[in-house]
Amino acid sequence: MTRGKKGLGLLMGLPIALALYLGFAPGAMAEEISIEMFTINNLWILVATFLVFTMHLGFASLEAGMTRAKNVVNILFKNVFIISMGILVYAIIGFSFMYPGEFGGVFGWAGLGLDPGPDGQTMAYDPGFTYYTDFIFQAMFAATAATIVSGAVAERIKLPSFMIFSTVYVATTYPIVGSWVWGGGWLDEMGFMDFAGSTLVHSAGGWAALAGVILLGPRLGKYVGGVIRPIEGHSMPLVTIGVFLLWLGWFGFNGGSVLTADPDEVSYVFVTTAIAAAAGIFGAMATSWTVQSKPDLTMTLNGALAGLVGITAGADVIPVFWSAVVGLIAGVIVVLAVLGFDRIGIDDPVGAISVHAICGVWGTLAVGIFGGGSFVTQLIGVGASGLTYFITAFIFFAILKATLGIRISETEENRGLDIDEHGMEAYGGFQIFTSK
Amino acid sequence: MTRGKKGLGLLMGLPIALALYLGFAPGAMAEEISIEMFTINNLWILVATFLVFTMHLGFASLEAGMTRAKNVVNILFKNVFIISMGILVYAIIGFSFMYPGEFGGVFGWAGLGLDPGPDGQTMAYDPGFTYYTDFIFQAMFAATAATIVSGAVAERIKLPSFMIFSTVYVATTYPIVGSWVWGGGWLDEMGFMDFAGSTLVHSAGGWAALAGVILLGPRLGKYVGGVIRPIEGHSMPLVTIGVFLLWLGWFGFNGGSVLTADPDEVSYVFVTTAIAAAAGIFGAMATSWTVQSKPDLTMTLNGALAGLVGITAGADVIPVFWSAVVGLIAGVIVVLAVLGFDRIGIDDPVGAISVHAICGVWGTLAVGIFGGGSFVTQLIGVGASGLTYFITAFIFFAILKATLGIRISETEENRGLDIDEHGMEAYGGFQIFTSK
Amino acid sequence: MTRGKKGLGLLMGLPIALALYLGFAPGAMAEEISIEMFTINNLWILVATFLVFTMHLGFASLEAGMTRAKNVVNILFKNVFIISMGILVYAIIGFSFMYPGEFGGVFGWAGLGLDPGPDGQTMAYDPGFTYYTDFIFQAMFAATAATIVSGAVAERIKLPSFMIFSTVYVATTYPIVGSWVWGGGWLDEMGFMDFAGSTLVHSAGGWAALAGVILLGPRLGKYVGGVIRPIEGHSMPLVTIGVFLLWLGWFGFNGGSVLTADPDEVSYVFVTTAIAAAAGIFGAMATSWTVQSKPDLTMTLNGALAGLVGITAGADVIPVFWSAVVGLIAGVIVVLAVLGFDRIGIDDPVGAISVHAICGVWGTLAVGIFGGGSFVTQLIGVGASGLTYFITAFIFFAILKATLGIRISETEENRGLDIDEHGMEAYGGFQIFTSK
Repeated sequence: MTRGKKGLGLLMGLPIALALYLGFAPGAMAEEISIEMFTINNLWILVATFLVFTMHLGFASLEAGMTRAKNVVNILFKNVFIISMGILVYAIIGFSFMYPGEFGGVFGWAGLGLDPGPDGQTMAYDPGFTYYTDFIFQAMFAATAATIVSGAVAERIKLPSFMIFSTVYVATTYPIVGSWVWGGGWLDEMGFMDFAGSTLVHSAGGWAALAGVILLGPRLGKYVGGVIRPIEGHSMPLVTIGVFLLWLGWFGFNGGSVLTADPDEVSYVFVTTAIAAAAGIFGAMATSWTVQSKPDLTMTLNGALAGLVGITAGADVIPVFWSAVVGLIAGVIVVLAVLGFDRIGIDDPVGAISVHAICGVWGTLAVGIFGGGSFVTQLIGVGASGLTYFITAFIFFAILKATLGIRISETEENRGLDIDEHGMEAYGGFQIFTSK
Repeated sequence: MTRGKKGLGLLMGLPIALALYLGFAPGAMAEEISIEMFTINNLWILVATFLVFTMHLGFASLEAGMTRAKNVVNILFKNVFIISMGILVYAIIGFSFMYPGEFGGVFGWAGLGLDPGPDGQTMAYDPGFTYYTDFIFQAMFAATAATIVSGAVAERIKLPSFMIFSTVYVATTYPIVGSWVWGGGWLDEMGFMDFAGSTLVHSAGGWAALAGVILLGPRLGKYVGGVIRPIEGHSMPLVTIGVFLLWLGWFGFNGGSVLTADPDEVSYVFVTTAIAAAAGIFGAMATSWTVQSKPDLTMTLNGALAGLVGITAGADVIPVFWSAVVGLIAGVIVVLAVLGFDRIGIDDPVGAISVHAICGVWGTLAVGIFGGGSFVTQLIGVGASGLTYFITAFIFFAILKATLGIRISETEENRGLDIDEHGMEAYGGFQIFTSK
Repeated sequence: MTRGKKGLGLLMGLPIALALYLGFAPGAMAEEISIEMFTINNLWILVATFLVFTMHLGFASLEAGMTRAKNVVNILFKNVFIISMGILVYAIIGFSFMYPGEFGGVFGWAGLGLDPGPDGQTMAYDPGFTYYTDFIFQAMFAATAATIVSGAVAERIKLPSFMIFSTVYVATTYPIVGSWVWGGGWLDEMGFMDFAGSTLVHSAGGWAALAGVILLGPRLGKYVGGVIRPIEGHSMPLVTIGVFLLWLGWFGFNGGSVLTADPDEVSYVFVTTAIAAAAGIFGAMATSWTVQSKPDLTMTLNGALAGLVGITAGADVIPVFWSAVVGLIAGVIVVLAVLGFDRIGIDDPVGAISVHAICGVWGTLAVGIFGGGSFVTQLIGVGASGLTYFITAFIFFAILKATLGIRISETEENRGLDIDEHGMEAYGGFQIFTSK
C-alpha cells in the first residue's frame, strides 16, 4: 500500500485540487489522469473503506461467539471501544506517524491532527484519491491491530488496562512500523513487499496478542494438571457470521490496497484473495479431519482467515495458482499452530496468534517464494517488525501489569466480566419457554 | 439532499436522456458533464442505496436484541413489514408528495405512482443520476422513519394498529414535511439546512415515537411504585450487530446525500460521519461510566447512533474538528436523555426518542453553530417540523386508540406477542444440552 | 447475463488489453468505450461480486436459523464448505463448461483452469470488464445452487455424501445447463430469456433439492400417523438476518447481471428487484394471515425471497408495475407451495424447493407474460433445464445412496449431527444465569 509520499503527493495533487476547486475542468487535467478517472479511483477507495469498516463487526461477532456467554458484553464493549478509539487516535497521532512525508525512514512526524494542505481540503495522491479518503481508509486499518489483540486476551483481562494498551499501541507502534514500509521508510527502500498488511496489520496484532497472553496466563480451568480442557465458545452462528464478514471486508482490505480502481489489478486481487480463502478452508478442513478425526467448524473457519491473512502480503503479485497453494498451506499451518500453542500452554481463545502472527509471517515470506520478492528481504522485514511489535507490546503490558494490573480476580473470572465490569448480562432478557 | 426540482431536472435531463438513448455519445454531453461522470455519480447513489437498505437490517437486529425473547418474532415481523410497506407506499404516494416539482412550498403532488417522464425511462437530475436511482435511494430513507417508531413502542403495541399507523405516517407526514426542505419548499427557501436528515428522517421517527409512547404507556412491570425496574434486552450481540450495521449504512445515508460521487465532498462526509460516531461512543461511554459508575454497553452503542444522528444534518459543512465535538456532545446528551425519559415514565425500550428526536434536534441546531447556518432558521425548522411530526403522529395514534385500540391485553403482554400475534416462538427449536 | 463469447470477447478485449498494458491511453480506445467507462463498468461488477458473496452468509444464517440447535454446526459447516468448494471447482472446471466460447450449444469446454488469454492478464468483454472480474462474479453465482440444496436436506443427510454431491453438481450440471443460455448455447439461440438466473441458478438449486429430499425422506417425527408435526427453527433472528442479507446481495445478483454500470439499466433493475421483494412480502403475509389465520414470520420472509427469485429472470424487461404483480403472485405461491409440499410429505426445513424451484419457474414464465418474451420458449427452457437438473441430481443422489449412503442413523438424528459429525455443540459455552 506504499504510495507517493505526502510531499510529492501534494505537488501532484495540486493540479487536481485546482481542477476540482474550479469545478470540472478536464482541460486542466490533460497531463494528469482525467477527473472521471480520479473520481472512480476515489470512489473505489471509499467503497473499500466501508468494507474494511465491516471487518470490525466481523471481529466483534467472531470474538463474541468464541467466548462464553458470561463474557460477551465485555468483548463486544471492547470492540466498540476499539473502532472509536482507533479512528480518533489515528486522526490525532497515527496518520501523522505512518505517513510523515519525507523522513529518515525510521521515525517521522507530519504534525498533530489532520492537515489536508494549503488548498483547504483536497489533496490528491497519484493516481488519485483525496486526502480525506486516504485518511479514512487508513484509519479503518489502524484499529484492526488492536481488535486482533482483544480476542486473544479475552475472558480475563482488566478492561481499563486493555483500553490503555490498545490506545498506546495504535498511537505509536502500529503507525511507526507501518511508516517503515507504507510511509516509504527503510524497509520500503530495501524492497520489502507487504501489499495490504500480512505483516504491517495482521502480525502487528498477532505479536501483540502473544505478548499479552504470555503476561496474562491462561484462563482458569483451561489447563488443569497438565490436561488441556477445551473451553467452548457460546455461539457458532456468531463465529461463522464473523468470519464471513471478515472475508467480505477483505475484498476492500486487499482490493482497496491497489489504491486505484485499475480493472486489471483490482479484479486480479479479488481472485487471488477469494481463492486463497477458499483454499485455506480446504487446508484447515482436511488437516482438522485428519488430526482431530472430525471436521472442526472453528478450525475450518480459521482456515478461511488463515488463507486471507496469508495472501494479503502478495495478493497483487502472486500467480493465481500459487495463491491457492499459499492459502492451502496457511490453512494447514493454522490448525497445527492452534493445537501447538495449546500444547505449550498459550491460551488464545480465538486463535488470533496462529491466524494473524503465524500466517502473517507465512504470507509475507510467501511473497519471497511465489511473488518475485527477495526472500532475505522479506525475512528481514518480518523479523525486524515482529521483534518491534512483540517487544513494545510486551513492555506496554508489563508496565500495566506492574501498575494497574492486567488480570481480573478469580471471583470475577468465575462470575464473568459482564456482571462485574459492566453490570449487565448479554442475555438478560433471554428465556426459553418451549414446551417441546 | 435538496436538488433541482423535477421540472428543471427534466429539462436538464433531456440531453443526457437523449445521449443515453442514442448510446454513449459524449459529444452530446459537451455542455453537460460527461457520460462517464454521470455514470459514476449514478453508481455511487446506487451503492449508497444498498447501504441505506442495510440500515433496515440494522434496526431489525438492534430492536430485536433490546426486547425480551417472547416479543422477538413480533419486532422482527414489524421490521420486515416496514421495509416492504415503505418501498411500496413511497412508490405509490410518498415520492410524489416529497418531490412535487414546482409547488407552493407547503404541500404538493406530482401524481400517483412513478413517472419517469416523457423519455420513457431516463430522467437525470443535475449533476447526474436517473429517475429510478433517485426514487430507490429516497424510498430506502422513507421506511426509516417508521422503523424508528417500532423500537419505541415495542413489546406492547397491537400489530394491526402499528401497521396502519406506519403506513399512514410514511404516506403523508414524512414526505410532506420532507418536501418543505428537500422538495424545495418553504423551509428550503428560508435557508434551513438539513443535509441528510437529522430532522427530516430521524426526528421524524423520534417525535412520532414519543407520541406513540405517551398514548401507549409503559410496559407492565417497568415502573412499580415509583421504582424504575430495568427490563433487559435478550441479546447484546444482536444489539451490537445492529448498531454496526447502522453505522455501515450511514456511510451511504450521509455519503449518498452528496448526490454525486464528488471526491472532495464524499470523502469529507465519510470523515465527519466516522469521527462523529467515534466521538459519540466516547461521550456516551464516559458519561455512562461517570453517571452509572460502570460502562454500559447499550448506552455506549447508543452513543454511536447519537453521534451519527447528530452529524447527519451538517456532515457536509461542519469542520472535522467540530464534527468530533458534535458527536461527543450527542453522546453525552443521549445518556442523559435516556435516563431522563426513564425518570419521567416515558418507557422507550430502545432509546429511540433520545437517539433520533433529541439528537436529531441537537444535530440540526449544530449546523447553526458550527456549520455556517442561521441558528434562528434552524430553530424555526426544528420547531415547525417537530410540531408537525408530533401532532400528526399523536392524532393518528389517538384515532387508532379510540377505534381499534393500540395496546395489547395484559395476558398477552405477559405471555408475549410472539405466541398470540404470530403463533410461534423466536427460539422454538432452541435447546441447550451442554453437560459442562 | 449472456454476453460476447470468449472468442469474440478476446478479440474485442485486445485493444483494451493493449491500452491497459500500455497504461492509460484513451486514444487507443477511440472506437471502443473510454477507459474510464471500462473502469466504471468493471468496478460495478466487482461491487456486485462482493454483494453476491454476501448472499452466502445470508444462506448460512437463514438455514442455521431454520434448523434445531443440535444441527446448527453441521449446517454452518456445509455453507462454509460450499463457498470454498464452489470457488475452487468453478475455477478448475465450471467456468470452462459454462463459457466454452464457440461450441455446439449443448456441451462445450474451454480448457482446464483459468486462462486469461495471450495478453497475460487482461481480457475484456464488450462493453467492459476483465477476465478475472468475469470469473469471480460468475464463481459467486456457482456456489449458490449447492447452497440452496443444503437447506432442504438439512438435519438428516450424511456430511460426506452431501459434500460429494454438491461438488459434482457444481462441476457439471450447473455450468453445462448454464452454457445453454449464458454461454450462448441452444436455449439462448432460441431466444430463451433468463436475465439473472430464476432458472439457471435458483431452479438449479431447487430441483436438486427436490431430488435430494425425495431420496432422503422426511426428518424423524415430522409426519407421525398422517399428522404433520411442525419442527420449529431455533432462531428467528438468524432467519431474518439471513433474508435481509440475501435481499442485499440480490442488488448485486440482479444489478450486476446488467454487466455494465449503465445508469438506466442498473437503476431500473434495482427498482424492479426491490419492488418485487416488497410485493412478495405483502403477498406472503396476506396469504399466511388468511390461510394460517396468523401472520407467520418465516412465511413472510420466504415471501421476500419468492419475490426476488420471481423477478430475477425479468428484472431488466418487466415494467415496474408488473414487477410488483410478479412479486405479489410469487409471495402467494410460496406460502401455498410450502403448505402443499408439507401435505404430500416432502419435508423441506427451509422451504427451498418452494422458493427456488417453484418461484424460479414462475419468474421465468413471467418473462413470457409481462416481459416481452415468448411464453412457449420460456416453457421449453424451464422444462428442458428443470428435467436436466432434477434427473442428474436424482442420479447423483441415487448413486450415493446405493454406495456411501445418504441418510444418518436414527441415533445420530436424535442426538443431532453436531456431536457425531463434528464433535462439538453450537452453543457449548452458552448458559443463562438470569435471576429475573
